[in-house]
Amino acid sequence: MDSQDARLPNTTGQVITCKAAVAWGPKQPLKIEEVQVAPPGDGEVRIRILFTSVCRSDLTFWKGEGQTHVFPRIFGHEAAGIVESVGEGVTYVKPGDHVIPLFSGECQECKYCRSGKTNICMKYTIDPNRGFMVSDNTSRFSKDGKPIYHFVGTSTFSEYTVVDQGCVVKVDPRAPLEKICLLSCGVTTGLGASINTAGVERGSTVAIFGLGTIGFAAAQGAKIAGASRIIGVDINPSKKELAKKFGVTDFLNPLEYDKPISEVIKELTEGGVDYAIECIGNTQLMEAAFASIHDGYGKTVITGLDSATKRVIFNPVEFLFGRVLTGSFFGGYKGKSQLGDLVQKYMNKELQLDDFITHEMPFEKINEAFELLDDSKCLRCILHLN
Amino acid sequence: MDSQDARLPNTTGQVITCKAAVAWGPKQPLKIEEVQVAPPGDGEVRIRILFTSVCRSDLTFWKGEGQTHVFPRIFGHEAAGIVESVGEGVTYVKPGDHVIPLFSGECQECKYCRSGKTNICMKYTIDPNRGFMVSDNTSRFSKDGKPIYHFVGTSTFSEYTVVDQGCVVKVDPRAPLEKICLLSCGVTTGLGASINTAGVERGSTVAIFGLGTIGFAAAQGAKIAGASRIIGVDINPSKKELAKKFGVTDFLNPLEYDKPISEVIKELTEGGVDYAIECIGNTQLMEAAFASIHDGYGKTVITGLDSATKRVIFNPVEFLFGRVLTGSFFGGYKGKSQLGDLVQKYMNKELQLDDFITHEMPFEKINEAFELLDDSKCLRCILHLN
Ligand SMILES: [Zn+2]
Ligand SMILES: [Zn+2]
Ligand SMILES: [Zn+2]
Ligand SMILES: [Zn+2]
Repeated sequence: MDSQDARLPNTTGQVITCKAAVAWGPKQPLKIEEVQVAPPGDGEVRIRILFTSVCRSDLTFWKGEGQTHVFPRIFGHEAAGIVESVGEGVTYVKPGDHVIPLFSGECQECKYCRSGKTNICMKYTIDPNRGFMVSDNTSRFSKDGKPIYHFVGTSTFSEYTVVDQGCVVKVDPRAPLEKICLLSCGVTTGLGASINTAGVERGSTVAIFGLGTIGFAAAQGAKIAGASRIIGVDINPSKKELAKKFGVTDFLNPLEYDKPISEVIKELTEGGVDYAIECIGNTQLMEAAFASIHDGYGKTVITGLDSATKRVIFNPVEFLFGRVLTGSFFGGYKGKSQLGDLVQKYMNKELQLDDFITHEMPFEKINEAFELLDDSKCLRCILHLN
Repeated sequence: MDSQDARLPNTTGQVITCKAAVAWGPKQPLKIEEVQVAPPGDGEVRIRILFTSVCRSDLTFWKGEGQTHVFPRIFGHEAAGIVESVGEGVTYVKPGDHVIPLFSGECQECKYCRSGKTNICMKYTIDPNRGFMVSDNTSRFSKDGKPIYHFVGTSTFSEYTVVDQGCVVKVDPRAPLEKICLLSCGVTTGLGASINTAGVERGSTVAIFGLGTIGFAAAQGAKIAGASRIIGVDINPSKKELAKKFGVTDFLNPLEYDKPISEVIKELTEGGVDYAIECIGNTQLMEAAFASIHDGYGKTVITGLDSATKRVIFNPVEFLFGRVLTGSFFGGYKGKSQLGDLVQKYMNKELQLDDFITHEMPFEKINEAFELLDDSKCLRCILHLN
């Protein structure tokens, strides 16, 4: 039993009143409120969140530009914590277990989960417009008796949250939660885009478009996979030094060239890279990434989304000789089945997370963390709940 | 030694005067002319062509719409014949060997050939604008002392042609050349699009867009690979019966539905097919094919080209969860290394070619064969040279 847990009163089966950062409307500063968190229903798990970070998707849906507005809402999906209690039928975890919540859940029973070809689950597939639990289409959060909506099944900007048991992974209790919380979104997405989706191989060449958390994680993934050359592309020159820590061998700033960056990359690599990974969610960069791969078997992976109205446009002849375009969601990792391995890799120092943490602050300062990310002044800011 | 060959005088080292169908200009009817065919240069092979068929690419470059005009020219790239003589340094074949010329050659030495990941060769990659031999940038064909241009390194609309030794594959002399000539383009392209590029697996679902030679071959490839459902899409209702011969289980005519055919396919297949193969070279069909695959791991393969100005447009979110778009050139087959296996499969009745042959006629009627294909009134028309 975890010592922190042992100090807490037994709240099993009871409504918990705790602090949460509630978004009352688009672009309204989050407000730290006392909210009520209902006990977990059948097959659900209530988690005491200890650390959470802010990811760009939280910003995107908080801003609500071109998105369905689902408010009031508790955002947050990069986090780690400890199981407080479990609902009926939950056998996978028990109170005291250290866990990471998963916005990309795994039922382990559907056609997709059993296919061995995708990490998408038909039951727990992400739906950013869903504000309720999958089990019964109601919320576990409320204030003054009125429901507050969930976000992607995780809602980690709260001292306590409730998730489906398919949307949580148990981790080694010796692993530092304040670090491994990063594995619940951006870092894993980038790592897996290189390792799983692109399938970077020893000696291959990789171009990474956009050096934020996902981009740097993609670079690290390429390095782990043995790439001989990792080209990092970003218009922010301050990324150049940091990039080295993540394995980037060549930093390119498109603003320093008077020709398309894809041409520069093709010249550097005798016709193009083996793999290009777009890590921002910008259709122009997606097209540039595709233009940077060589013919025959070059592969482009996109990891993010641009605004819903944007499109990518290609000349089909570019595909005819074997170029590949695909996307990577959560890096192709099955969270429940595979995140434990990444935690072990971190503990074995085969994977580094610490350099992604550029800021730490108490949970109450969450709006500052939002601003830092919105201004691209941080990679990850860890918020401490207690 | 082949009996037909034995009747011929020894022409080694000499210029041969023979009949060829010369295209003097775009859309001008081909003219059967007496042309001179020079002896093969170093590393080249002179072939007596016995059978050739007409493929859509011959039409495309003969019409010259939006294409570079390279005339006068001898078209043709689906054929089979017998080696007449070989140039210096040719060890791969000898006079009398039965061969299929390859527009997609294989040097077996370049980075791509050695990669194991593509059938594209850096030395012999297709260039429809090249009218000369790769070795010395001159032509082997002439009339009245003036050069006639080659086409994709094969120029099989001639009783004799010269090809690079990397652009020819030796085949079992027991195989009927009048059938296996089909393996030099369309049939192999379709087969391989399913088997190699899509990677159709036992029990999977496949949609084929466009039921010409490539489409039917793709259907046959899907059947050989064990697909449980093969949906054929074509606006020509007369294809329905023929489609069954090639393994199509469901024939869909888009004109019979008042919604996009991708919606119909999604309804039939619980969310989309595993693989969609576009076999016409039409950007709208490419987009429809992509819209017909399911999320997570559905894969779309394009095999043809639309006019050079056409583009495909996609919403990138459609890729994010793992859909794949790629292309297949010559079905991903390495002609020199792998076409012999397909010939054996035909001889073992594991592969059928006969149903692709809807017409046969003497070489002199080649303009009729062009018309038949242009009017989509045939699959393949075999021209007999003698
Ligand atoms: Zn995220
Ligand atoms: Zn599932
Ligand atoms: Zn062809
Ligand atoms: Zn080669």
